[in-house]
Amino acid sequence: MSSSTQYKLHYFDGRGRGEAIRLIFAYAGQKFEDVRYSFDEWPKKKNDMPLGQIPLLETNGQQFPQSLAIARYVARQFKLTGKDDLESMKCDVIVDTMNEFNQDYYRIRFQVKDEDEKQTEKTKFVTKTVPEKVAGLEKLLKMYGNGVWAVGDNVTWADLVIYDTVENLLDMDDQVLNKFSTLKKHREAVEKLPKIAAYLANRKKTPF
Amino acid sequence: MSSSTQYKLHYFDGRGRGEAIRLIFAYAGQKFEDVRYSFDEWPKKKNDMPLGQIPLLETNGQQFPQSLAIARYVARQFKLTGKDDLESMKCDVIVDTMNEFNQDYYRIRFQVKDEDEKQTEKTKFVTKTVPEKVAGLEKLLKMYGNGVWAVGDNVTWADLVIYDTVENLLDMDDQVLNKFSTLKKHREAVEKLPKIAAYLANRKKTPF
Ligand SMILES: N[C@@H](CCC(=O)N[C@@H](CS)C(=O)NCC(=O)O)C(=O)O
Ligand SMILES: N[C@@H](CCC(=O)N[C@@H](CS)C(=O)NCC(=O)O)C(=O)O
Repeated sequence: MSSSTQYKLHYFDGRGRGEAIRLIFAYAGQKFEDVRYSFDEWPKKKNDMPLGQIPLLETNGQQFPQSLAIARYVARQFKLTGKDDLESMKCDVIVDTMNEFNQDYYRIRFQVKDEDEKQTEKTKFVTKTVPEKVAGLEKLLKMYGNGVWAVGDNVTWADLVIYDTVENLLDMDDQVLNKFSTLKKHREAVEKLPKIAAYLANRKKTPF
Repeated sequence: MSSSTQYKLHYFDGRGRGEAIRLIFAYAGQKFEDVRYSFDEWPKKKNDMPLGQIPLLETNGQQFPQSLAIARYVARQFKLTGKDDLESMKCDVIVDTMNEFNQDYYRIRFQVKDEDEKQTEKTKFVTKTVPEKVAGLEKLLKMYGNGVWAVGDNVTWADLVIYDTVENLLDMDDQVLNKFSTLKKHREAVEKLPKIAAYLANRKKTPF
């Protein structure tokens, strides 16, 4: 189980939709082959991927696209999906809610080309979407978590997905942690996990 | 386990994001309380929901939003998430790929207001998005399925999610089954499942 050849993760040379998976491997202390494509070489690789997209995990001799499916599977291998089916669902609820943030983020960051429109969308995201969804997240954490971790009494992949998503929120609004103490407190707790601290200290700096 | 009060599903009086969950209950032969709100009464209920949205499942004395998290949990209770973790991931990969269809569908169907823009988007969806994604889906089915079912040798929730998603594709293009024989064959197999056939025969007709 400790061989790095057991897992081969294909993604771009950035955090993006691959980073939550990398954080799960890091927290689990599991080595993996971290294949990172430049945008230049990607067109030659695209056709090797069943959906023409990455992230893609190779494991057990097969290919698996879809970042959240991959992240959930890897998390499950390392007992990071909660202690029972109900906790697994709680993780999923939180992950899907974070994914709504990410979908808006990726759209505004990379798909909206017009600069005025980007600015308008960004303002709406920061002043309306984020406060509304953080309020929702806070309700979920109150129902499912223990005041520190998102679900139950232990770290789950939901915590790592929250951490990674907040990185994207920070890219949109560098004051977001000062505005939402729940996010700040949670972020500090994750950054204190020794495995995560070590990973972050050595993580390659990329713009996104 | 057979009491209908164990599961209470809150959604609008339509298929939408609630129907995949209902199909899973139907296939499992599990009764549930099917609470359906009219658009008129919804504003009074919205604040009872942690994310201000539905579907929402009440079970084990707690509230769970997020349609896919709910569907996966219910599927798991009835052994419809595959025979092992790898098959569970395969189900998730397919479900997430179908969800990309649904996200486009809901946006075009309900959010794009301008009639010209709606028509342009619809044409693009039918002539570009659908063929591309169906090609991707076909690759996934070839890798993960047995030629009839999407994952492994048995019905999983991925099959029911494909079925439900194709209902949305049909709403955009009533020729979609004639264009893609994989979808047609799969649809016929699902409709022949006795529990599903019985459910569909009695299902309330709603416009979406
Ligand atoms: N729903 C997919 C989306 C994957 C996706 O959008 N991948 C992008 C990078 S983040 C990609 O492969 N872009 C290159 C391309 O489409 O050619 C997931 O979560 O994995
Ligand atoms: N990601 C959520 C989306 C839920 C969602 O968009 N729900 C809509 C109906 S399909 C809703 O509650 N709309 C009413 C509202 O937002 O007030 C899920 O999959 O459950």
